[in-house]
Amino acid sequence: MVDKTVRFGILGCANIARKVARAISLAPNATLSAIASRSVTKAENFAAENNLPESVRIYGSYDQVLEDPGVDVVYVPLPTSLHVRWVVMAAEKKKHVLVEKPVAVDAAELDRILEACESNGVQFMDGSMWLHHPRTSHMDKLFSLSNSQGIGPVHFIHSSSTMPATPQFLDSNIRVKPELDALGALGDLGWYCIGAALWVKGYQLPTTVTALPDVTRNAVGIILSITASMQWDQPRRTIATIHCSFLSHTSMDLAICGSNGSLHLKDFIIPYQETSASYDFTFGSSCA
Amino acid sequence: MVDKTVRFGILGCANIARKVARAISLAPNATLSAIASRSVTKAENFAAENNLPESVRIYGSYDQVLEDPGVDVVYVPLPTSLHVRWVVMAAEKKKHVLVEKPVAVDAAELDRILEACESNGVQFMDGSMWLHHPRTSHMDKLFSLSNSQGIGPVHFIHSSSTMPATPQFLDSNIRVKPELDALGALGDLGWYCIGAALWVKGYQLPTTVTALPDVTRNAVGIILSITASMQWDQPRRTIATIHCSFLSHTSMDLAICGSNGSLHLKDFIIPYQETSASYDFTFGSSCA
Repeated sequence: MVDKTVRFGILGCANIARKVARAISLAPNATLSAIASRSVTKAENFAAENNLPESVRIYGSYDQVLEDPGVDVVYVPLPTSLHVRWVVMAAEKKKHVLVEKPVAVDAAELDRILEACESNGVQFMDGSMWLHHPRTSHMDKLFSLSNSQGIGPVHFIHSSSTMPATPQFLDSNIRVKPELDALGALGDLGWYCIGAALWVKGYQLPTTVTALPDVTRNAVGIILSITASMQWDQPRRTIATIHCSFLSHTSMDLAICGSNGSLHLKDFIIPYQETSASYDFTFGSSCA
Repeated sequence: MVDKTVRFGILGCANIARKVARAISLAPNATLSAIASRSVTKAENFAAENNLPESVRIYGSYDQVLEDPGVDVVYVPLPTSLHVRWVVMAAEKKKHVLVEKPVAVDAAELDRILEACESNGVQFMDGSMWLHHPRTSHMDKLFSLSNSQGIGPVHFIHSSSTMPATPQFLDSNIRVKPELDALGALGDLGWYCIGAALWVKGYQLPTTVTALPDVTRNAVGIILSITASMQWDQPRRTIATIHCSFLSHTSMDLAICGSNGSLHLKDFIIPYQETSASYDFTFGSSCA
């Protein structure tokens, strides 16, 4: 019998890596084999704080994870601008990659990442949890059901992703620094809204995308808040509005309106509960 | 002791008049005194179908309601294009007016209506129920509470109002006829979305309004579906997105995102329950 346990290595000790390290431990077919930070002390602290088992190898450089033959998959929670370099290197070392979102700062860098994974025969995945949540596959069915039971053709989508950044975050977080996460709120939060709209539309690219005039940037040009629309003209007209912001209270809204039904979630990105998740689906109403 | 019962007369037997006639009967300080249709038979049928008491006077012309000294308030559920004529006449007869939405086809007609009411010393109200619902005054408080308990400054508002019109409606309803309700879905449904955004902003007019390119019209130019944004620049930036459509399943969404809290309703226009209504309010979260 072949051992199908997937052995993960983590590049960097970002906050999000705490959650993913825990998720790897909880998954029955995965194990955490190695972690690295640019400082071995930081990696040791991360291991201690997260109660990682003794068996996890702790490195003071990312290269050591890529060289480790006991690592099948590299999880990359580094700042976005570093993704292309480290993912391409990992792929060349024949490591599969799980890359934190946003995957790249632009389409050209994404293409380089995908090309490297493809040419080296390794799996690429991005770190958008909600797409892989069981709730999402339940919702997926609503789009394929007949009009009498499902959503029907979708006309309108709205999604927002906001979080109230602290003054400290707005001053020094990687997500407001041009050299680290240059996409700002659009990359960190709008990623989800755009992804949700594309998911609804079966990953068809929109005909037009329009930014509304309310974009708010920090002093070095990073987007802190933006509202935009995406429009599809074929085979039928659909419009999506999206809003993402570091300046508002938490929201994770997804609303979908079709001919025959409507779907609402207030926690589509991270379900409020760990062990259950729900959505509101109404259908079959008619006008007087 | 002065009798404070408000005596209503209704002009026209529109569908919505059934609900309002019932509401007048249920209100402890109101009574229905008269109804009129252009055909007395239609008015008699309306009275019979809605179990109106014998005391209700039934007329075959709208003028008779305006001449009736036993009527204090005229409720006007006529097609929008007829509002200015009948409301101005009612005001001149010193009748208070409750006018179905949308009140007028443009601002000039609204100004004529308001001027007539003001110069004749009568009360003007529009037929937007939700603004007078107890839930709304509860929500109102969330805007004035301190930041630790309330919404805080509002950055983003989204509202949708959609309903799945039948083929018959799209062919012959007054709401798709230029000579009757020329504002189409924008007047019938968008009225609520725009009104909700203005309510949130304390009726400050927006700095800019932008229609997104997805407007759908029927063959004679009436709006069947539209998406738009409203933006306020002072004293702080707020953006609202609105969507209204006769082509989608029912939605009545209102989402408000402030610095410190967010508010969600899926039934803001007509609460799903007659005897209770709720909203979702979350506040006080912080980012990691």
